[in-house]
Amino acid sequence: MNNFDFKIPTDIRFGKEKISCLKEEVSSYGKKVLLVYGGGSIKRNGIYDEVMEQLKDFEVVELSGITPNPKLETVRAGAKLCKEKGIDVIIAVGGGSTIDASKHIAAAACYNGDPWDLVLDRSLVKEALPIAVVLTICATGSEMNSGAVITNEETHEKLEINTPLLYPRLSICDPTYLYSLPKKQTAAGVVDILSHVMEQYFQPNDGAYITDVLSEGVMKTVVKYGPIAMEEPDNYEARSNLMWASTVGLNHLLTVGKGGAWSVHPIEHVVSGFYDLTHGIGLAILTPAWMEYVLNDDTKARFARFAREVFRIIEGDDHKAAKKGIQCVRDFFEKLEMPCTFSEVGIDESKYDKMAKEAVRTSNISKTAYVHLDEKDVIEILKKC
Amino acid sequence: MNNFDFKIPTDIRFGKEKISCLKEEVSSYGKKVLLVYGGGSIKRNGIYDEVMEQLKDFEVVELSGITPNPKLETVRAGAKLCKEKGIDVIIAVGGGSTIDASKHIAAAACYNGDPWDLVLDRSLVKEALPIAVVLTICATGSEMNSGAVITNEETHEKLEINTPLLYPRLSICDPTYLYSLPKKQTAAGVVDILSHVMEQYFQPNDGAYITDVLSEGVMKTVVKYGPIAMEEPDNYEARSNLMWASTVGLNHLLTVGKGGAWSVHPIEHVVSGFYDLTHGIGLAILTPAWMEYVLNDDTKARFARFAREVFRIIEGDDHKAAKKGIQCVRDFFEKLEMPCTFSEVGIDESKYDKMAKEAVRTSNISKTAYVHLDEKDVIEILKKC
Repeated sequence: MNNFDFKIPTDIRFGKEKISCLKEEVSSYGKKVLLVYGGGSIKRNGIYDEVMEQLKDFEVVELSGITPNPKLETVRAGAKLCKEKGIDVIIAVGGGSTIDASKHIAAAACYNGDPWDLVLDRSLVKEALPIAVVLTICATGSEMNSGAVITNEETHEKLEINTPLLYPRLSICDPTYLYSLPKKQTAAGVVDILSHVMEQYFQPNDGAYITDVLSEGVMKTVVKYGPIAMEEPDNYEARSNLMWASTVGLNHLLTVGKGGAWSVHPIEHVVSGFYDLTHGIGLAILTPAWMEYVLNDDTKARFARFAREVFRIIEGDDHKAAKKGIQCVRDFFEKLEMPCTFSEVGIDESKYDKMAKEAVRTSNISKTAYVHLDEKDVIEILKKC
Repeated sequence: MNNFDFKIPTDIRFGKEKISCLKEEVSSYGKKVLLVYGGGSIKRNGIYDEVMEQLKDFEVVELSGITPNPKLETVRAGAKLCKEKGIDVIIAVGGGSTIDASKHIAAAACYNGDPWDLVLDRSLVKEALPIAVVLTICATGSEMNSGAVITNEETHEKLEINTPLLYPRLSICDPTYLYSLPKKQTAAGVVDILSHVMEQYFQPNDGAYITDVLSEGVMKTVVKYGPIAMEEPDNYEARSNLMWASTVGLNHLLTVGKGGAWSVHPIEHVVSGFYDLTHGIGLAILTPAWMEYVLNDDTKARFARFAREVFRIIEGDDHKAAKKGIQCVRDFFEKLEMPCTFSEVGIDESKYDKMAKEAVRTSNISKTAYVHLDEKDVIEILKKC
């Protein structure tokens, strides 16, 4: 087991009607709030009203219209607003995109140069506004971690900024807020959660058995409840288990003692940086292709273990069990009604070279991923999609 | 899944040579240190020297001789020292007993009455000195939680004090520090970890599937590595997995979404309050007896699941699988060379009535335990031991 540090300062309030603590908790940070959210869904489903009821005594500035794959432009606008209005605290009401944009804004509000500088050099982040989250989509785990992924449309770069200053101070996670999510978003979130855990799980064997078994537990949870949430949107047991799975799936717990670069996310980030694809859909297409490509004599034991523990495959032979596991992943994504090829989402071969180059350039997949991937490897994986 | 709050402020530094951060981290709290530890083992194995090397520039007051089942008398002495010397920060070097005593001292140092008041009324704890931990025995999870169990010898009470102010600020967990542990302590620690997880796992079914699967993961870890650590004291993989299992086993992660009182610990606390038994030994004797006593048509499904997931029992019939699971627990404790009856540790029937009464009085086992236990039930369980 590798050495690690572990400290998560985020205060999680999980369950029905937990919104009731927002007023008191946020008041400790000040009176001027930047309220960040996406499209109009929180107005339609009543969450906006519940939040505003809590913020009656605050001065609220709104920044709405945060899109999936949040853009640098939005961050620039948000940071400008914070400076102009003297914002004390940011409240992100939404999922990963809204939270990630809010994190970047929180840092940019305390920085005098262009926000993109902070992505390129994290050491420039010296302080950040406090962030509170009201979670309405579970997927990215951003509610309890210190990372944020931002897209620079000018350069087609989708990069992460990550520093302890960006942990949300408070995250309110009410599973009933997920009831009104469209099927597609539920599914994309489920894929994202599973992928996060897989990225951490598929790493060179390093004796961190406990981290692996905890990961298997989270993956079993996702596989069990993903389809239920699709069929019964207001099933509390399914929504609550998935919501906590998303948080635990990427709050550092499943990476302790392990190491190495992620494999599929860096490729997907480039693809959705070029095509503005929903992140979960990109992952659903890429993951089985990656699994097939890297399955070999060295990796088959881990893939077989994954198949046995997560999908209860009883096949004795490692290679066969591994193959069945990959098929289970495909079947699972199909059950979630995810597209399974690039052609279904309008992506052709024209940019494979460029994207492969970019994926290798902007990540460590060629150096420390589970199976090291160079540009040629990435192109082969893209072709399998 | 029940509503829950989740926030753990403790900063964990896990791995080889992590002691090197002690100086810098502690200096943020001040210069006057109360160093709390047990017998002389940390002097024999060199840990004392490593700690003192870090504390060269500090003013160190020592409080040694902390015993298992730490006593109120010690807390009184420690609190007095803190007040007299103007202590800024407490460093606990040891396992659960040393950490628990340090926590109670930290609170008592900031309180003007008798320390026992704080145990009887937690709301009296308004502040506490900061605590840093150097972990040398893994068992209680006290390094990352806010509880402390203290024994009042005058009243034969062994009670818990628990408030967020008592979270250690820093816990240094170096698995190599466990290499010199005697077999008996290793084993008692393993039993304690398993018992903590079982206490949280055996609760009414409440839809917190994810918490249950995470618990199964930790229990599998303990069952896998416990015997290895017994046989190979310097097996890093075994020690590190067990060390993190002890922390995760009782840092709130495995109780989120669930509820209800513990069953075996309240009984054991009374037994070791009367007989000064090693906590892990008491648990090893009581746990299988409790399992047998509460196994019935209502509980058999959960006991069967426990057997299947933790011990890989493939028996199809729930009752048979459950019985096999209980036998596996007995076998496991035997492999750890634990006593399995009260008579082996010199406990006879003379105080069963008194202890049963006390167990019911000082806990919620008669009201909210997995299977509610009144005095008669407790006596029956004690008889089975």
